[in-house]
Amino acid sequence: MNGVKRIAVAGLGNLGKSVLRGAKRFSDLEISYAFSRRVNGISKEGDIYKLPFDRINKYKDEIDCLILCFGSSELSEMGPRLAANFNTVDSFDTHSAIPDYLIKMKEAARESRCTSVISSGWDPGLMSLARLYFGAFMPYASVGTLWGPGVSQGHSEVIRRIPGVKKAVQYTVPKESAEEALRESKPISSRAAHKRKCYVVAEEGREAEIAEAIRGNERYFKGYEVEISFITNEEFEKEHSHLPHAGKVIASGKTEGGDQSAELRLALKSNPDFTAHILLATARAAVRLNEEGSYGAFTPFDIPPRYFFQSSPTILL
Amino acid sequence: MNGVKRIAVAGLGNLGKSVLRGAKRFSDLEISYAFSRRVNGISKEGDIYKLPFDRINKYKDEIDCLILCFGSSELSEMGPRLAANFNTVDSFDTHSAIPDYLIKMKEAARESRCTSVISSGWDPGLMSLARLYFGAFMPYASVGTLWGPGVSQGHSEVIRRIPGVKKAVQYTVPKESAEEALRESKPISSRAAHKRKCYVVAEEGREAEIAEAIRGNERYFKGYEVEISFITNEEFEKEHSHLPHAGKVIASGKTEGGDQSAELRLALKSNPDFTAHILLATARAAVRLNEEGSYGAFTPFDIPPRYFFQSSPTILL
Repeated sequence: MNGVKRIAVAGLGNLGKSVLRGAKRFSDLEISYAFSRRVNGISKEGDIYKLPFDRINKYKDEIDCLILCFGSSELSEMGPRLAANFNTVDSFDTHSAIPDYLIKMKEAARESRCTSVISSGWDPGLMSLARLYFGAFMPYASVGTLWGPGVSQGHSEVIRRIPGVKKAVQYTVPKESAEEALRESKPISSRAAHKRKCYVVAEEGREAEIAEAIRGNERYFKGYEVEISFITNEEFEKEHSHLPHAGKVIASGKTEGGDQSAELRLALKSNPDFTAHILLATARAAVRLNEEGSYGAFTPFDIPPRYFFQSSPTILL
Repeated sequence: MNGVKRIAVAGLGNLGKSVLRGAKRFSDLEISYAFSRRVNGISKEGDIYKLPFDRINKYKDEIDCLILCFGSSELSEMGPRLAANFNTVDSFDTHSAIPDYLIKMKEAARESRCTSVISSGWDPGLMSLARLYFGAFMPYASVGTLWGPGVSQGHSEVIRRIPGVKKAVQYTVPKESAEEALRESKPISSRAAHKRKCYVVAEEGREAEIAEAIRGNERYFKGYEVEISFITNEEFEKEHSHLPHAGKVIASGKTEGGDQSAELRLALKSNPDFTAHILLATARAAVRLNEEGSYGAFTPFDIPPRYFFQSSPTILL
């Protein structure tokens, strides 16, 4: 498990750029290729060739794992096609659509003896792992999740794909009452615990239809308290060009001996940077799974933790 | 993976009692036997037979997994003997001795096609998992651990085994400066970050030799700031009969996009209760590993997270 793994990136938005920057911190990984639909010719930046996306299959034999840096809606189309030719990792984050996506990725990957790991970011990903371990180890506790304050890239992307939207960002903000409820083991739904604040730069006159499209989105916005502000391009560039995020998984309950609590807290100045490093560690795990003959698609729940770590982790026990 | 698993307990101290109480929360686990060296005849309490420890091998075919509720010094002797006849789980917690113990448990378990999971409590265990995931996912961060304020059962047991000690408890207390240092990504050694406060009821006149034995213990006390107070039995019973604990794993670092931090916090009113439930979930995982033919000894780092969870955890993604 010690050879250098040849990684490539598909998608050169914020996340893809963060992966390219973060790779230097993984001495067992080497990135030579980045594919993008916005790239036409071949160019080289540093050690990395940037190539048009439609040439990707020609590089099949030179890539041990492809990191898919697309949003969830693009992943649902492109993920299975790529999983049929490459080992892949992604951060697919539409929670309710994960089971379907997992099945499609499994079918695609198994046939070609490839290995895909899906939904491995901070949430789903690291926060999911906390929910699972807390749930398994504390069956007497209620386990709840709070997101934010921070920018949800998935929700922002959904807004950006609405016709008439030029730029958009969505902040997920936990309500003050929600953290208190969770600490008192009172279950609270995600929809009751969070607000969704949207800042949109729109084509003139299309504000009403855009607002309707946002509020009407079943998966991402329906049932939430949603605030929508239409702002100018200048304001957007000045106030909303960073991608911070935060999250907490809170488990709280009582055994015969008294109150027990466990909590994971994340505070991220750059969500894409944080996610990118998780994807890089996941690419390491995906190659190891494939090398040992574990074909198909997996989530972080299926993977022995040590597969993510470069060397032997025994010292961390 | 859905049949009811037949679990037994070895050792009926605080931890063993907590396991018996906690088992009711695991509908896929069933405990019928508890073995103790302090038990002579056979008795039945509720659904559980209490039996002398030396009869344990006669029950081999009726036990899917044995939960070892002993301290680390007893485990190093008894663990390998039991692992040769049973699937076992334990919370062996002498961090520096884990690699040796793991090797001995592996040898014992492999030969008999049994499965043992070692060091699966809150630390080592849940806190170790945080150290591993944070370390793998945040290679730009420093990862540090703070324990307490709370009672360390391992350290208390070490003191209780010193000749002349009647009762003893050891509180691990994090120094105020340590948390600040960790948040600023300044690495700090465990020995510099914590005090060890010991409360001892001693046989008269043996205080000096006891204090010397505590301070001289290489594995547990050497290099720490150690405070030792000799107290009366009455004071001990009144002030020191509970077993709270707490801990934090703090990861903090910087990517190109700014500061990133992750933190696991545990606050336990009853350390034995908390550990007991983790051991029960680990017993579930050990039986599953054995059923799939994974023989030998493992740590939580080797086990896919979903093995700890009763049902399919996909919804927790």
